[in-house]
Amino acid sequence: MNRAQKNAARKELLNKIMSAASDKYLSELESRYLPRVQAYLSDAVGTQTEISPLLRYHMGWTNLKGVAEAGPAGKSLRPILCLVACEMAGGEWSTAIPAAAALELIHNFSLIHDDIQDGDFTRRSRPTLWSEWGVAKAVNAGNTMRVIADKAMLELKQGEGDSGTAIKAALESTLRCLNMIEGQYMDMSFEGSTRVSVANYLDMVGRKTGALIESAMYIGALIATGNKQTASEFGKCGRNLGVAFQIRDDYLGVWGNPQNTGKPVGSDIKRKKKSLPTVYMFNQASKNDLKWLETAYSQKDLNESQVRKVLEIMNSLDGAEYVQYQANIQAEKTKLRIDKLNVSKESKSQLSEINEYFVNRKK
Amino acid sequence: MNRAQKNAARKELLNKIMSAASDKYLSELESRYLPRVQAYLSDAVGTQTEISPLLRYHMGWTNLKGVAEAGPAGKSLRPILCLVACEMAGGEWSTAIPAAAALELIHNFSLIHDDIQDGDFTRRSRPTLWSEWGVAKAVNAGNTMRVIADKAMLELKQGEGDSGTAIKAALESTLRCLNMIEGQYMDMSFEGSTRVSVANYLDMVGRKTGALIESAMYIGALIATGNKQTASEFGKCGRNLGVAFQIRDDYLGVWGNPQNTGKPVGSDIKRKKKSLPTVYMFNQASKNDLKWLETAYSQKDLNESQVRKVLEIMNSLDGAEYVQYQANIQAEKTKLRIDKLNVSKESKSQLSEINEYFVNRKK
Repeated sequence: MNRAQKNAARKELLNKIMSAASDKYLSELESRYLPRVQAYLSDAVGTQTEISPLLRYHMGWTNLKGVAEAGPAGKSLRPILCLVACEMAGGEWSTAIPAAAALELIHNFSLIHDDIQDGDFTRRSRPTLWSEWGVAKAVNAGNTMRVIADKAMLELKQGEGDSGTAIKAALESTLRCLNMIEGQYMDMSFEGSTRVSVANYLDMVGRKTGALIESAMYIGALIATGNKQTASEFGKCGRNLGVAFQIRDDYLGVWGNPQNTGKPVGSDIKRKKKSLPTVYMFNQASKNDLKWLETAYSQKDLNESQVRKVLEIMNSLDGAEYVQYQANIQAEKTKLRIDKLNVSKESKSQLSEINEYFVNRKK
Repeated sequence: MNRAQKNAARKELLNKIMSAASDKYLSELESRYLPRVQAYLSDAVGTQTEISPLLRYHMGWTNLKGVAEAGPAGKSLRPILCLVACEMAGGEWSTAIPAAAALELIHNFSLIHDDIQDGDFTRRSRPTLWSEWGVAKAVNAGNTMRVIADKAMLELKQGEGDSGTAIKAALESTLRCLNMIEGQYMDMSFEGSTRVSVANYLDMVGRKTGALIESAMYIGALIATGNKQTASEFGKCGRNLGVAFQIRDDYLGVWGNPQNTGKPVGSDIKRKKKSLPTVYMFNQASKNDLKWLETAYSQKDLNESQVRKVLEIMNSLDGAEYVQYQANIQAEKTKLRIDKLNVSKESKSQLSEINEYFVNRKK
């Protein structure tokens, strides 16, 4: 195959992937679960302390002036996956709402601190907390979010009447939160080195993104059944889903359509993010390209022409296909795990729909 | 009384206070409890992850190169007060070790983040984490410390066999941790304003310092008795002890002997800390002094001659006596609470010894 043929084949493959993406089932779950999760979250975050306005702004409920508005919301994947796991494992999903909300709060704690650590000025097209209120208050806001999460998780017992389940859920979320923080640390360490293996990258995202999604499905199933073994099988499913989601995120960060993702073209390249496309490129680049890359990446930010050249190198190495291939491997692993779950045929097909959407989504 | 007489009287009073300070009983408790708490802490913090060296350095166990050394340790007040409350309430103190360690870890999480928020370069005469490893990694290290704390608190159940107690302890520490973070936020807000009332100051330190010490005594007594009412009485004792401890800290930050405190003379004044001496001064200063103070405090740092003038103003207002008087009020409140506790006469006298030491200590 010559270069032109390769490009055509790649384009066809990618178009096919894009057109397959549908979030129909996820949208159904959103409509069913999220109003009650949102109500719980709003109560839990509260309005009473000096820090409340920062938290409500970050959650997208108010603007910078504290006026209520429906700002751009997150995807709420963790609560949805927690509640769907609870329901599929035979539980009453509403009993798991405090846990679902806690997971969303832990996720948002990590976002607030990540934005500080990565020096990001915008999230969901709005200024980040630290860029508006300063690092000191943003650190505090993240910590507050995390404590409110703990409180919600420990409140499980009231819905459950079983403090054993609450302890197990709290311990699980604590351990996965530790993994998440370890992953964030690995991610920061990667930024200082140009050579990161794909294995190290997968280990990092397994912690940073996979662990909390693992705990979402684990805890949902645990609340439904009280059985650690069942919970663990759902949890493993969640971990793979999380890794696949992150790899697709990395894909969209380079090759996504800015109109869908809301991020400018090449934004992940510009800020030298060690996402899978970059990791792959550094491992595969020719000696000459590598020399150029190492010089470029030793600078603070990449300029427009450097971003273009990096993109050229990535494309010359079939980076998009490679990254999507890695996402698909994770989706295959998830499929095997879904097949093993002791749930109805319908549930399996619904989980498969989520699985496919995660690796094919456009935004 | 003229100025010279006033000064002489103040000096006499202060000398009397100083000579009364003794940490004899606290030292006994340290020798009994701390070796096992330290062993638990060392295991909990671990050595295995990339972040471990930062945590071990912060705890004073290693130097900057990661080599083991007995660095300057903290006072371990929270574990000691947790274990002594457990023992005095009739429990076996060793069952409360995971909780005691968890409280020490929460305290250290807050110190790591406080140092970032306050921009402090040194703690216990050594460089702070953020000043050596950068803000991003220090934020992460604090978060890791906090998760390890949660893990320890949830491990209580293994020593206890009663997950109900573990849940109650975890919920208590979560709520007090929230108070602590609120207190830190209030403290930061105070820095931007010159006028803070003494009532607001007391509210702030009740949260920032009092809440965690409250939870230490609450949880210790809870583990011993399983009784929330008893736990709450010990907890209230702890809250007052904490506030008194902080006020004495503020006192030492201005009038302490640098050879004892390890802090240079006027260090709290230089960095414009809104401690009780400053709060009092701004509320009491003459119109002229206030004008001068407001100009001086609008600058980034105070210079040597400004520090001297601030100290003069504080002394002219009998600041030292006022601050010590506020500490003594707290000690009186603690005394009343100690009297009400359902513990032996000997225990009461031992707690009173701690109470007196807290407000009279030299370092």
